[in-house]
Amino acid sequence: MLTAKLSPVVRPRLTRTVAAAAAMTTARRRGFASPAVSSTGLDAPEPYFPDEPRRPHMVTSVPGPETKQMLERLDKYQDTRSVFFVADFEKSKGNYIVDADGNTMLDVFAQIASMPIGYNSPAFLNLAKEPAFQTALANRAALGVNPNKDWIQSVENAFMRVAPKGMDNVFTVMCGSCANENAFKTAFMYNASKRRGSATFSPEELSSCMSNQAPGSPDMAILSFTQAFHGRLFGSLTATGSKALHKVDIPAFDWPKAVFPKRKYPLHENEAYNAQVEQASLQNVEEIITTSKKPIAGLIVEPIQAEGGDNHASPAYFRQLQKICQKHDVLFIVDEVQTGVGATGTFWAHEAWGLPTSPDMVTFSKKFQAAGFYTSSRLRPSQPYRLYNTWMGDPVRAMQAAAIVKEIEDKNLLQNVRQVGSYLTQELESLQKIKGVRGQGTMIAFDLDNAQKRDKLVHDMRQLGVNMGGCGEHTVRLRPMLTFQKHHADILLETLNAALQ
Amino acid sequence: MLTAKLSPVVRPRLTRTVAAAAAMTTARRRGFASPAVSSTGLDAPEPYFPDEPRRPHMVTSVPGPETKQMLERLDKYQDTRSVFFVADFEKSKGNYIVDADGNTMLDVFAQIASMPIGYNSPAFLNLAKEPAFQTALANRAALGVNPNKDWIQSVENAFMRVAPKGMDNVFTVMCGSCANENAFKTAFMYNASKRRGSATFSPEELSSCMSNQAPGSPDMAILSFTQAFHGRLFGSLTATGSKALHKVDIPAFDWPKAVFPKRKYPLHENEAYNAQVEQASLQNVEEIITTSKKPIAGLIVEPIQAEGGDNHASPAYFRQLQKICQKHDVLFIVDEVQTGVGATGTFWAHEAWGLPTSPDMVTFSKKFQAAGFYTSSRLRPSQPYRLYNTWMGDPVRAMQAAAIVKEIEDKNLLQNVRQVGSYLTQELESLQKIKGVRGQGTMIAFDLDNAQKRDKLVHDMRQLGVNMGGCGEHTVRLRPMLTFQKHHADILLETLNAALQ
Repeated sequence: MLTAKLSPVVRPRLTRTVAAAAAMTTARRRGFASPAVSSTGLDAPEPYFPDEPRRPHMVTSVPGPETKQMLERLDKYQDTRSVFFVADFEKSKGNYIVDADGNTMLDVFAQIASMPIGYNSPAFLNLAKEPAFQTALANRAALGVNPNKDWIQSVENAFMRVAPKGMDNVFTVMCGSCANENAFKTAFMYNASKRRGSATFSPEELSSCMSNQAPGSPDMAILSFTQAFHGRLFGSLTATGSKALHKVDIPAFDWPKAVFPKRKYPLHENEAYNAQVEQASLQNVEEIITTSKKPIAGLIVEPIQAEGGDNHASPAYFRQLQKICQKHDVLFIVDEVQTGVGATGTFWAHEAWGLPTSPDMVTFSKKFQAAGFYTSSRLRPSQPYRLYNTWMGDPVRAMQAAAIVKEIEDKNLLQNVRQVGSYLTQELESLQKIKGVRGQGTMIAFDLDNAQKRDKLVHDMRQLGVNMGGCGEHTVRLRPMLTFQKHHADILLETLNAALQ
Repeated sequence: MLTAKLSPVVRPRLTRTVAAAAAMTTARRRGFASPAVSSTGLDAPEPYFPDEPRRPHMVTSVPGPETKQMLERLDKYQDTRSVFFVADFEKSKGNYIVDADGNTMLDVFAQIASMPIGYNSPAFLNLAKEPAFQTALANRAALGVNPNKDWIQSVENAFMRVAPKGMDNVFTVMCGSCANENAFKTAFMYNASKRRGSATFSPEELSSCMSNQAPGSPDMAILSFTQAFHGRLFGSLTATGSKALHKVDIPAFDWPKAVFPKRKYPLHENEAYNAQVEQASLQNVEEIITTSKKPIAGLIVEPIQAEGGDNHASPAYFRQLQKICQKHDVLFIVDEVQTGVGATGTFWAHEAWGLPTSPDMVTFSKKFQAAGFYTSSRLRPSQPYRLYNTWMGDPVRAMQAAAIVKEIEDKNLLQNVRQVGSYLTQELESLQKIKGVRGQGTMIAFDLDNAQKRDKLVHDMRQLGVNMGGCGEHTVRLRPMLTFQKHHADILLETLNAALQ
């Protein structure tokens, strides 16, 4: 275990001293601490990737000429306006991404927060050599009809090994939007069966649903929040409220949104205000649930509203939210697509809330490579084929998910995330020109004065060799991989200092 | 090329003679023709898989004890009521699937019509050894931000190489439902921008969409057909009308459905009737488009309504359908999720219609392993990020799609499908106890008297070593892989004869 080798330097919350702080500042000035020994001679943690680049190395501006040429070719077939740069993954390693022009960048955007354990992780490269993996690759199962022999093991070693406490079932699909929409369907089926009070459907229900009419197609709703992001398909986009451009021109269900609390930072200076906006949000939720003309079957919430601007709330807020849901038998769905799989320092972000009982459903995708949602057998639909599709997930991605879980355990990556996150947050708080620094684990964000300044910073940072992304209106979000260590944080801080000058 | 080696025996539509028919009957009585030489001594096509099993071999009933034990373990975590049997893909080969109990079955269901070129295809096994493939596996790109260097080649070698005539763009996702829903979004954006007549959104549109209200969330519709299947998410499920159990209890948009023609068989005895129901369907479509209170942005249709019972219509019908859509500027979306990639004897089923111009969008998934839709650059949204998600497809599955395209070309698999399909259809037509035999390529179906008899036949066939599936109310659908040859068809026919006795 790596834990034993960790020096106090990387556990600042626990043992931070003036000397250690000074050491960090020195290290930051130097740009990066030596992977093996820090500038003060104190032991530093061993690097997870001894062979990754030592620091960024830029040879062109980004996007460079090679990227531009490739995008010109690709743009004939696909819209490339959103592309930052073309990646050369063969040359990328660990926390560093190399682009088609040979630029080596420290990557704290990490494929929109979806890379878990570093580029060309040995855990993945070794898995690819295993016969069972190759068999799964060459023979894609329709898991609802013919699960492969290895599937059961994947379910146990990936999903069930890290199942949120009290959740004994998992439904697998292939992306986060599909995960959320299948969770919504589960909530609607549960609510309808509860109101029906019978296991069988009425003839009216069975005939009316075929023409999309009630009672078979009931007018029920999922309650979500302002600024939420839950996906881009018709149900999940309805629940989304992050940006107008995502939603405009697309028909939506008439589902309500409660106001998500907008906290002020720093927290210790705004305790009363923040408690008040959280209370107002909770009242808003309960008011909508109790006055809605259509039944609210479920409520969906992100532990951190990521796309919407990295908006956080307190554990007490989420405990209250669950309590309100339970009081009105509204299923409590936690969308952990972006927060899950270690980014906040616990495997699932909602673990930090201290809920007395588990959520009703927890959805996942991104870093897990596999997608789906946890639930419990009491929510299993009355009949088969009601939650169903052709592939029902991907055995290849499930095997990778199992490898990720093992890597997190073997390398003690959750502790790494907590320690580096804590260090990075504190250092960011001391930076001028940025504000609203907030984070859980290494899922950290800060604000610029406006969108223009944010966009410029993100652009400038890329030219200096750090790839990062924005969210919300004027926020920068850091989404490093779980293998992001203190010496990477120091490079990030040094570069940020330079870019902000 | 394999074509040159094909004997007249496997080209029955072209050169069928009494002698050849007799030879086939003899072969059928024997159970299967020798892969190399038929029972009459005439040359038969070389088998695509010389090392696959020669015929089914059953050692237990299906599901067997090993499957049952595994499902008992899996059922704690996942609903297993829909599972036929657990597959042992390592032992499966070509057109034969082996289950966990060691039963060897000829597979004409093929992972719900999603296996393209046989189990453990050398094309896939060899691809898995390529460094570029392993790199793509270990480093999953967020294609909208950082396409991998090989992506452009995959797009060209997989999707664009077989792009329907006149379609120059492709949008990739990960499943058929997502493909259809993104096509719907494209139709809505096109329709809204047309009505808006301007490239910019109004402040009312941008604010109202955030609360799911018009004008930003406009009340528009997609027109689909009775018995259609387009997926199980909220938009695609609204357009679906195959089975009440798929739809009941799930909120739906109030979108209309036109009546799909229900032809009678055999076709040559029902020409007048079939022409009449097609005409009635077309009138119904035009009536809905012209009288609908909400704008119809797009019409979606399957070339063969597969889940809904394998319902076919004539090429003239589809040409008229496109004409009506064009007349009213309703985008014409062809859902080729189940029909695409060779199953009907052309790469895309709609090629057989002789359309004067291409459809507006063609969606795909299943056999292609990769999913998405073809479109043209004129339908590209006005701004980036409007059609977007984290992964935007899967480079690994796109590389497999390229390998499938190459295999289809190298092995001349489309011709194989046409020839075997033609032979199998004719032989099925002569069978007693089944009716309504219909097919295009090897995408063949027939009806039993009722659901009970159909279910019994499917069950009995599996015990005899042929894995097949149902669709609609009392239909059996054959969905063999593209590598399904005459000697496999003979085993299927022989077994069917036995099961129907």
